[in-house]
Formats: sequence, structure tokens, C-alpha cells
Amino acid sequence: AGLVDRRVLALAGPQATLEFAGKRGGKPSATQADISNRLIELAKAGRRVLRLKGGDPCVFGRGGEEAMALAAAGVPFRTIPAVTAGPAARAAALLPATLRELNRAVILAAGHGAEDDAFDWAPLARAGAPIVLYMVMHNLERIAAALMRAGRNPQSP
Amino acid sequence: AGLVDRRVLALAGPQATLEFAGKRGGKPSATQADISNRLIELAKAGRRVLRLKGGDPCVFGRGGEEAMALAAAGVPFRTIPAVTAGPAARAAALLPATLRELNRAVILAAGHGAEDDAFDWAPLARAGAPIVLYMVMHNLERIAAALMRAGRNPQSP
Repeated sequence: AGLVDRRVLALAGPQATLEFAGKRGGKPSATQADISNRLIELAKAGRRVLRLKGGDPCVFGRGGEEAMALAAAGVPFRTIPAVTAGPAARAAALLPATLRELNRAVILAAGHGAEDDAFDWAPLARAGAPIVLYMVMHNLERIAAALMRAGRNPQSP
Repeated sequence: AGLVDRRVLALAGPQATLEFAGKRGGKPSATQADISNRLIELAKAGRRVLRLKGGDPCVFGRGGEEAMALAAAGVPFRTIPAVTAGPAARAAALLPATLRELNRAVILAAGHGAEDDAFDWAPLARAGAPIVLYMVMHNLERIAAALMRAGRNPQSP
């Protein structure tokens, strides 16, 4: 039920132990601190740990937080970049994130966490570049309304 | 000398024909129209064509233009997203593109093509999100100056 396909997990050898640490859509999930602590615990126990995430770990993936926790604990680590979801989803829909002549920039923004309405969407709305929203399921209508209040054309991507 | 590592090219089987279509840093290179036409020509000749690019083809990679040319010529195709260079370079430098609490958005922008100064950097400068510049070697100083004239703090990422 996670973001990682079973066929990817099947690539792990029989000597590997798999632990699920993903979000469970509304149900109680491991907190970020739990996950970082578990990585540190396993590494200190001498295990070789691979933290596998869907998408790119450092584009709205909290990879930076885990990296800082590992660094603070003195655990050596390496970060492997990956295909980030926003432009990939656009390409799958035959909508390239950039098209020469049309746009010189693209904005990747997180929709999740906007419940408090504290985030000011106006500067992004006025930036004149397409906005690709991540983790936006619950907030799409509200964010779209905020962008349009700030002057963004409803027809713009 | 291209953006694709020789070890990747070595994965091609002996039945494959390799053609280089990359940029040659200042020297005469294949034009985008040349490349699109060659893809169409080979496909119409019954070849199975893989267009391999460095980075993500649809993030400043002109993948969209090639896709439109293929579609216009009636050539069926599939686009495979990839690791885009900007966030990957940041991760390699231990600078994640996003950090919860710090930024909710990141802007990917192309520095190349700015020779004419026609592009207005001010709205991006005021968007309040870190800017990752692609293909910026020749224009970095000028773009940085334009961003700061528009009020961007010189200390911001």
C-alpha cells in the first residue's frame, strides 16, 4: 500500500529486512522523528540501512530532515536523487514542465500543510511561472482560490 | 564528451546504433529541428529509437518540443521521466531543495537564453522561494544582479 512498487521491493536480496515507514492516509503513521531515530538505531547496530522513498527524497520528501538527524548522530550517509513526482506526472500527461518559448521557469510547491492558511500564495501567483502542486488532495480548491484572488489567470497552468 | 556517461551507453546491445546529438559547448551542434527530424526519419524507417538525454527531458530538456514534432509526424512515442539536474545537484551538495519549516516551494529556472535581457526576473525574485538555475554558466552574474535589483536578499539561496 506504499508509494514504492512491490516489484522494486522484490529486488532486495533474501538477507535484507524490510520495514514499512510510510504514511497511511489519515491513519496513525510513523512520525518523522520515529523514522529518523529508527535509521540511527539500525545504523548504530551495525546494519547497512537503505531508506527508500517514493519520489525525490529532497523535493518535499523530508530527506533533508533525515540527513540532518543522521549527521547530528554521526551516522555517515549518502543521498541518491530520484525522479520527482511533479514533472514526472506532467510528462505522463504529455504536459512537459517547461517548453521553450512558453516558460523559462517552473515552481514546485507543497499543498500539504496549508490547513492553517498561514502560507501567502500571492507572491507565487504573481511569479508568472506554472505551479506544480505536491500533496494537494485536501487543499486544491482552497489553494486555487487563493492563487486567483492574487491575480493568477484561471486558465494558466 | 556528452552528458551521458559512457557506462550507460555500454548498456546498449551490439544490435544498437549510437548517434550523438548533444551540444558541443560553443562549437556547431545539431539544431533542435535536425534532431527531431532525425528521430522521425529513423522511426519511419522502421527503427526502434531511444532518444537519450542527460537530466529530465521535460525540465528544460526540450523533450516537449521533440514530443510535439513526433506527434505531428504521427510517430508513436513514450516519455520516461528522469532525475532533473537542479535538485540532484543540490542533494549532492547536501542542500535539499526543500526543507519543511524553511520553504514550501522551489523555483526551477533556465539561465540560458537570457543574453537578450528580455526576461523579467523581478516576479521570480519576489516569489519568496529558493531559485535553482539551470544552464547558467555564462549569465550567472547578470541574473544574480537582476534578482537583487528586484529586492532579493543576496544571502537567500
